[in-house]
Parts: sequence; C-alpha cells; structure tokens
Amino acid sequence: MASQPSGRTTIAVIAAEAGVSVPTVSKVLNGRPDVSPRTRATVEEVLARHQYRRRGRGPASSGPPLLDLCFHEFDNDWALEIIRGVEAAAAEHGIGVVLSELGGRHRPEQSWLDAVLARRPIGVLLAQSSLSAGQRHQLESRSIPFVVIDTEGELPKDVPTVGSNNWHGGLAATSHLIELGHRRIAMISGPSDVLCSRARVDGYRSAHDNAGVATDPALVRWGDFSVSAGYEHGLALLSLPERPTAIFAGSDLQALGVLRAARERGLEVPRDVSVVGYDNLPLTEWVGPALTTVDQPLQAMSRTATQMLVALARGQEPPLRRVELATELVVRESSAPPAA
Amino acid sequence: MASQPSGRTTIAVIAAEAGVSVPTVSKVLNGRPDVSPRTRATVEEVLARHQYRRRGRGPASSGPPLLDLCFHEFDNDWALEIIRGVEAAAAEHGIGVVLSELGGRHRPEQSWLDAVLARRPIGVLLAQSSLSAGQRHQLESRSIPFVVIDTEGELPKDVPTVGSNNWHGGLAATSHLIELGHRRIAMISGPSDVLCSRARVDGYRSAHDNAGVATDPALVRWGDFSVSAGYEHGLALLSLPERPTAIFAGSDLQALGVLRAARERGLEVPRDVSVVGYDNLPLTEWVGPALTTVDQPLQAMSRTATQMLVALARGQEPPLRRVELATELVVRESSAPPAA
Repeated sequence: MASQPSGRTTIAVIAAEAGVSVPTVSKVLNGRPDVSPRTRATVEEVLARHQYRRRGRGPASSGPPLLDLCFHEFDNDWALEIIRGVEAAAAEHGIGVVLSELGGRHRPEQSWLDAVLARRPIGVLLAQSSLSAGQRHQLESRSIPFVVIDTEGELPKDVPTVGSNNWHGGLAATSHLIELGHRRIAMISGPSDVLCSRARVDGYRSAHDNAGVATDPALVRWGDFSVSAGYEHGLALLSLPERPTAIFAGSDLQALGVLRAARERGLEVPRDVSVVGYDNLPLTEWVGPALTTVDQPLQAMSRTATQMLVALARGQEPPLRRVELATELVVRESSAPPAA
Repeated sequence: MASQPSGRTTIAVIAAEAGVSVPTVSKVLNGRPDVSPRTRATVEEVLARHQYRRRGRGPASSGPPLLDLCFHEFDNDWALEIIRGVEAAAAEHGIGVVLSELGGRHRPEQSWLDAVLARRPIGVLLAQSSLSAGQRHQLESRSIPFVVIDTEGELPKDVPTVGSNNWHGGLAATSHLIELGHRRIAMISGPSDVLCSRARVDGYRSAHDNAGVATDPALVRWGDFSVSAGYEHGLALLSLPERPTAIFAGSDLQALGVLRAARERGLEVPRDVSVVGYDNLPLTEWVGPALTTVDQPLQAMSRTATQMLVALARGQEPPLRRVELATELVVRESSAPPAA
C-alpha cells in the first residue's frame, strides 16, 4: 500500500488529539460497534484532519481476499451483467465477491460501511451508488481503495470510475433514426439527476443539431429505467395528437414497456412506430420484434473496474483513473423508415 | 454448534493416525494450500473415518459473518431472483453474501471448496449445484452446514433442501391447457437428468391421465432452460405435420424462444398456438403476449433456505430438512382455447 506523506501520523497522535485511548482509535478503524457515536465522530474528524492512512490493509482474516460489490439496487439484467463481469474477474485473482444492495438508495448507510471496515476487503466496487466525502474518507483512512462503476453523479476528479460513452450512445441511436427518415423522435431517458441520463439526452440533441432537425421539448421525457416507466411514457407519447414516429428509450426495459404500450394502442413496431433501446441485454435479441439497441459493454466495464481495483489494492496507480468504454449501435428489427 | 458423539476424537488422534503433525491437520482443516495433495487426502480419509467434527466454526475473521452462495451458473433472471432473496435474508442477520459461479458445472472444484474452508462462512447455499459425498464430508468435518436450493439431483435424505413443487406446477399448467380444450399439447422440459425437469414432465403426464387424454411421446422434448433451446424445439414442434395447438415450456426463457419461433412460422399466440412458461420471472408480464406461466416462489425459496442455514449454523435443528414451496399457475394472455 502507498504510504502518504501524512502517513507518519501514528494512532497514538490521533488518540491523544481526540482525547481517547489507542485501543479506541483502533476499534474505530476496524468498524467495531462498541464505540459511542460521539467518540467515533470525534476520532473520524481527527483522522480526516490528519489525512491519516493506515499502512497496509492488514488482513482481518486468514481466509482468501474479498472485495465488496455494492449496488444501489439489483433488480434486473443490467445488474446481473455487472455481477457476472466482477465475479469472473475476481475469480481469476482468487478473490471472493461479497455482494450487497442498498435497497434503492444511491448512498450506503453507515451500517454497511461498518461491515466493510470490519471485513477489510481488498477494495470496494460501487455500481450506480456513491459515497459521501465523509464515507470516502473512512475508506481512505483504512487504505481500502474503491472504484465507481457507471457513476450516477459528478465525482471528485481523483475518484476512479469506469463507465461507457453515454453521449455517443445517445448520438448514435438518434442519428440512426434520423437517417431512416424520422423527424418526430421522442426520447425517454432515466432520472434527470443521473449523469448518464443527461449525457444520452445531450447526444440525442446533438444528433438533431448535426442533421439540422429541430427537437420538440414535449418529446423528451425523464423517468426511471424500469419497464413500467417505459410503458407509461410510451402510452402518453403514443396518445399525443401528433405522435412521434420513433421512440428512443433509455434502457431495454423501458423499450419493452414501449413495445407493450404500442401493442395496446394497436400500433405495429416498426411499421407504425420505431423503437430503440439501450444496454443490449441478452434478452433483446429474442423479444418481438428483436430490439435495435445501444450496446453498453457491461461485462467489460465491470471487468475493467475489478482490474483497476486490484491494481489500487497493490499500491499501483492504474494507467487511467477515468475509463470510458465505447458504446455501439446494434440494429435489429424494431427500427425502420417511417410510414410514408 | 452441536458436538457429535464422535466429537471426542481430537486433532492429536487424527494426526497420529495419519502419521502427520498436529499443525498439518490444522492446515488441512483450514483449507490452507501448503499441504501436499497426498498428505491432504490421507488426513481427509482419517477425518472421514472418525466422523470428526470441529467443535464450533471458530471465526477465521474478526469481521462480520459470511455465507457462501454458489451457483452452477448465473446467467439469467432465475439466478437474480435467488440472489435477491438470499441477500435480503442474510442482510437481516448482518451476514455478508459471498457469491460464486461454477461456470456451468454442477459440482464445484476443490479450489472453490478450499476457499470456503479458509473463509469459514457460517454456511453454504448451493443453487442447482451439489457436492460429492467427499465434499459434503469436508464441510461436515469443519462444522460448516449447507442447504441445497432447487436440487438438480437425488440427494441423501439428511441433506437439507428447499425447492418448489415441480410436479404440481407441471400438472397445473397442463390441466389449464386441457381445460381450454387442447388435446395436442407439447412439452419442452429441462435436461432429462435434472430432477425438476422430470417432475414437471410427470405432472404433465398425470394431467393427461386425469383427463383421459393420451400423450404423444413425440411431443415431449428435453433441452436446457435457455431461450435458444425453446426457440429450436419450438421451431421443430411447430413444423410437425400435425403440429401441437399448445406448448408448455420448462422455463420462461424457453417460452420466449417459443414465441419467437411462432412469429417466424407466421403463427399468432394465442390464436394459433398457446404458450405457457415456467418461473414467473418479472419480465413475463411485459412481453407480447404477456405469458401464462407457473409461479415459482424463487425469492421465498432462497429466503427459506437462508433461514434454515442460519438455524443450522446456530446448532438448531430446522423444523424440516426438506421444504417444498407451492407453485401456482398465473394465467395471462398467451393461452386460449384452440382454433375451432
């Protein structure tokens, strides 16, 4: 592990300054529950002020190394693809993967962090979840590195992240529809406060600008990435007096919802309306019609993030701290020229 | 932890009989790599002969307890539902879940077992994977309990298992189709050497017997549970000179493949052919048409298995060692009376 310039601060110095004993500082460092919240806050504050870094992780366990993989939610194939990539890459290094879910929250609670501190994994992978500055510091002071996969928000420049080029994905999908001849293209994106949703919408707008086609703000919708969001926005869009001839969905699940909405409106895809998804989940080639979608290399992303984490855990600086993998349009059956 | 009658055998006795030192026996018990395969085999053999049981798990780690969840393969929503159920139940007990996949093998390799022995989890959950008698004994001698979820084969009576009533699922799905008026019903099941596949086919046959309808052996197919298996068997069945009017698939993924095969043959579901799936995965209500399917309570199964494991780890005997949860038919859009 890298020792920081400030790494010379000893536990004794921290203890003296916090007005507690050395074993108490040690308990706080190891995420032990038997310290009062107030004492703990004081110790964390002193640790942060000194930019304390434990030298070396020090095994909590005589067993094989572990890494923690934390999801804001795993309820769909997107998560499954990430899990598979991490598990395969970790297995190559003999590292066990401990999986947790935050039940839909984007930021873990302290109890999760305490378990991590006590477990002393080689590092932490955060998938669409992120840490507060205080939480990041707790990991840093224990020399536990972390990497964010597909971040949902802006992060300080030195936080290592792996994602994919969402802007280009939005651009490629929309350009494809414009080239087919569509001029009224709706977009259903993810939540407006999530970075990847905004990047995809910007790509959608740029494609219009490039082609000299005006966008209609009424055709851009924000939702979550679920099937039901796609279904509801799809129903609303397909009920507009001047309905779009194509819908670009922010996820394959949303696209499935749009397909259902089209069926209920008696519209045939792609004859009456084209639909493009996002993610290229394994099922998309099997649904009817097979989905045109943007391939997001989820397994490659999670493999890359795992390798970056292993390097950081060895005290190596990875070649890049910000990795963005390429996205690619996959054309299948659900997109076609608009009806004449 | 329960101590067995034979628990009085000490490590010293084992060491003497195996002709090795006490620390060597200890290394073998803890899955340490620095013991020759031959020495190890000798020690395991003596451990087995004495039915040695370590008293108590003894934490390998000062960190929070872990359990190991092992899949033969996690490549679909079936696995995701199991993972979610286990993670949620384990989190309630403050237990971390270590996830591994056997890359399609139904039986883990020794390297996986060594990692488990070294990790000392509170127990092991095996999903559609199983252990050899020797592997079971390795866990038993370390007092690491295990529970099998949805076993793929026959197991000794004392091995704790949680599954669902596959025979009843097969019966209910087929009876539904017979009641709709179908008389030529095909079935695509899973692999013929997997217990649940056979139970579902038996349910299919019993439904026919109950109704006094003859079955045609040419209409019963065995495959794996993938979309492509459903697609290929679906194409073959729908090309028969006297084609079935309904197809009961062994998984929702297979059913998706059958839907695609029907589209390619120009057949409309359910007008020209009814399709019933199995599992009731979250996506089945969204595909077109929404699938009639057999609900397998996957999250409840994995929650039950986790609770059983926690009880065993505490030295408690669970109320039942063989739990089978009820399956239930969910009727949606893909099944209807046959065309007149």
